[in-house]
Amino acid sequence: MLQLIKESKTPYYVQIYEYYRLEIEQQRMIAGMRLPSVRELAQQAGVSKMTVEKAYYQLASEGYITRRCKARYEVAFVRPQQENGADGRSSSFHVALRQSWLYDFGSGDMDMERFPLDIWRKHMNKVLSEPAYLTACNDEQGVPDLRSALSQYAYEVRGVHARPEHIIIGAGTASLLGMLTTLLRSSRLCIAVENPGFRLGRELFRNIGYDIVPISIHKGMLDMDALTASDARLIYVSPSHQFPTGTVMPIGMRQRLLQWAEERDGMIIEDDYDSELRYYGKPVPALQGLDTSGRVIYMGALSKVLPFFVRISYMVLPPRLMMAYHRQRGLFRQGASVPEQCVLAAYIQSGELSRQIRRLRKDYQEKGALMEQFLTEAFGQQMEVSRIESGVYCHVSLRSSYGEAELLRRAEAQGCRVLAVQPFYEVPAQEERKEFLLSFSKIPSQKLKQAVMALRLAWREEER
Amino acid sequence: MLQLIKESKTPYYVQIYEYYRLEIEQQRMIAGMRLPSVRELAQQAGVSKMTVEKAYYQLASEGYITRRCKARYEVAFVRPQQENGADGRSSSFHVALRQSWLYDFGSGDMDMERFPLDIWRKHMNKVLSEPAYLTACNDEQGVPDLRSALSQYAYEVRGVHARPEHIIIGAGTASLLGMLTTLLRSSRLCIAVENPGFRLGRELFRNIGYDIVPISIHKGMLDMDALTASDARLIYVSPSHQFPTGTVMPIGMRQRLLQWAEERDGMIIEDDYDSELRYYGKPVPALQGLDTSGRVIYMGALSKVLPFFVRISYMVLPPRLMMAYHRQRGLFRQGASVPEQCVLAAYIQSGELSRQIRRLRKDYQEKGALMEQFLTEAFGQQMEVSRIESGVYCHVSLRSSYGEAELLRRAEAQGCRVLAVQPFYEVPAQEERKEFLLSFSKIPSQKLKQAVMALRLAWREEER
Repeated sequence: MLQLIKESKTPYYVQIYEYYRLEIEQQRMIAGMRLPSVRELAQQAGVSKMTVEKAYYQLASEGYITRRCKARYEVAFVRPQQENGADGRSSSFHVALRQSWLYDFGSGDMDMERFPLDIWRKHMNKVLSEPAYLTACNDEQGVPDLRSALSQYAYEVRGVHARPEHIIIGAGTASLLGMLTTLLRSSRLCIAVENPGFRLGRELFRNIGYDIVPISIHKGMLDMDALTASDARLIYVSPSHQFPTGTVMPIGMRQRLLQWAEERDGMIIEDDYDSELRYYGKPVPALQGLDTSGRVIYMGALSKVLPFFVRISYMVLPPRLMMAYHRQRGLFRQGASVPEQCVLAAYIQSGELSRQIRRLRKDYQEKGALMEQFLTEAFGQQMEVSRIESGVYCHVSLRSSYGEAELLRRAEAQGCRVLAVQPFYEVPAQEERKEFLLSFSKIPSQKLKQAVMALRLAWREEER
Repeated sequence: MLQLIKESKTPYYVQIYEYYRLEIEQQRMIAGMRLPSVRELAQQAGVSKMTVEKAYYQLASEGYITRRCKARYEVAFVRPQQENGADGRSSSFHVALRQSWLYDFGSGDMDMERFPLDIWRKHMNKVLSEPAYLTACNDEQGVPDLRSALSQYAYEVRGVHARPEHIIIGAGTASLLGMLTTLLRSSRLCIAVENPGFRLGRELFRNIGYDIVPISIHKGMLDMDALTASDARLIYVSPSHQFPTGTVMPIGMRQRLLQWAEERDGMIIEDDYDSELRYYGKPVPALQGLDTSGRVIYMGALSKVLPFFVRISYMVLPPRLMMAYHRQRGLFRQGASVPEQCVLAAYIQSGELSRQIRRLRKDYQEKGALMEQFLTEAFGQQMEVSRIESGVYCHVSLRSSYGEAELLRRAEAQGCRVLAVQPFYEVPAQEERKEFLLSFSKIPSQKLKQAVMALRLAWREEER
């Protein structure tokens, strides 16, 4: 039942929009169901018809609802929950409404203010002044200079062994995973995934016909019995910073996993999406560095340490897959902008990237500590906050009489975007979870406290 | 049998490299076969051991051959023929050797000298000076301004009806096709393709489990009986400039095809890859413009009229597929660089693109005419040259006592890269064809004549 929150900074039409969007996404309203007429809702909610129209228009323009000729609006279709940023790498659809998020706990995007755009621009200028260089950089596998730079970077920062000729550059992790589904397809049509785990990854494989075998993971330990019992010879893991639980896979577990791969003649996809951002202790070297028998496919993303507008990822293939790549090369096209690849190469080689990562680490460590402190102060016993050791997300579980959907809606009504953990489970846990991921990367430090207070207001318990 | 051509401008080591590369690609040498030892080959070919080593090293570094411990080199694996540019959109792998192509008839890349890089750079500068604008442009479906610009452009230039919200931007055609395989997958696992036709397209669909139904096409007419007899409800066509035959689909045929789609409740993928480049008569409007029942998926590429380094393509989805797109949105990530999308938008809106296309059309029309003239003069009765009406490729069929593979090797030995038509056939024609595609876009006009003479030299008949 729609209830507008008068004291909220969020405009009414946005509150209406958010309410129905969630109703539809949470599948409480399904395709074909009719929405109240504009007049009805306006009267009932005590707002002008224009306000309702504005909300409906937005819902329609985003495809949530449609209108049969002159008749009333009805639900157009059901979107999966939380696809928005469901992989913890933010992807913003509600452009028209982004301004409506007062506090975006849901986006891992780096704070643009921390990025030296002028330096990037200088490099770009240089690159776009050298047509001959650009031409020489035209390489299907990725700009050679960038592959060299990444080869060194990945070794120094992550202990990854990658010769430039084993690196494949791609326009984002999704496109590289798409390539992988092709490279691996022939041999393996069954993939084990962490449960909970990176949603986009398993969906991509499921989508082209793979069986998905969820393997429960607890404190970084995979259920090896379940893995061994399964037919899977391929597994998708995020050992350095498990998504979404945020734990690190212990060395013993890593060795067992590598051993499993060798015994199974299997492969391991290592998703190393944010491990540059480690705040305590020394960074955990990548699994790939321990691999002696070419079983690990290393996926490196710089998405957490570069601004959203750079859409370049890379992967390191073991020799046997390089062969497959060469064999099927004709199927692939390099999608990453050549000038942007060149600029990134220069950005890395000039040491700018490392400097920036050091800056970010410092900022984020402080912010993360603040976030923990504020959350603990605000929620006390009601919330369990897991210590932030890396990345930009804080994993919290909440005690509340409200259901997850209701908690989400209340947060959104307060202008807070948060990610629920539930959708990352392939096999839902028995008890309904009230776990959320809260990112602090996009919220300025001085706003952090009021952001947490808004969340507190949204999630406060009321007498009912 | 390797024969070095002394009078060729191509260095010996390159000739050796090209010989074995072709032997392997044409599968005359297969995985495991051993190459002559360096000494043997050096003696036999009358060159220094260093020359042979250089060639072998290059082959090894590209993965064609490997060396078991200290033993002799052997063939590592077989790559499909002609994957290099097999889709007529050049993709250059042999970075180390690109300089060795004296005359590249195989690349559709536009002549960089025809591109106002400075204007592009100016726009890029502006975009990279406006972080707020960049942030506002962050949209999964593609930068809104670019979608608006393309919506208007596609309508004016191609008669395509596309509202910006129905346009999906992608990092290259391949990634958009990948998205399509996902959007269409559920309903249809069988696709009809033109025979001969665009190779990458059908391979992408085959690869994720589609049955491929080749439909022969002659003078732009599809074998409708075969199509109707098949189970296909999806077809991939290039009506405005059939690839590789270069013909245009007559209006009657277009209407029959649309009718077929409606009767079958089917879909048509229209690949409109180069139709901006039409030299005679008025450009043929896109099939999509004739479609009244939302059956056509329009694939627009600017790859022939923009420099190779811009990797942006777009497609226009009919309403029913937009629904599927929204539903599965979480599976897709925008891979195209945001700044590059913004720059392209400005480039189109400022009218620069149209100006450039007019320039290119003029250049290419002249070049195309010259090419025809030179080829006819050089080969006379020996070669049938199909008139160039659009695009950058000239379709020729050759009378020769040599086989296709031999003709390819001889061309390459003369430093000429050409594309054979054969690989574009899904079902090979009975008689061995000696048809080739010759592009003139990358060869400067003043070099065109000597380029053709080099080809003449390569393909001359000898007493044997």
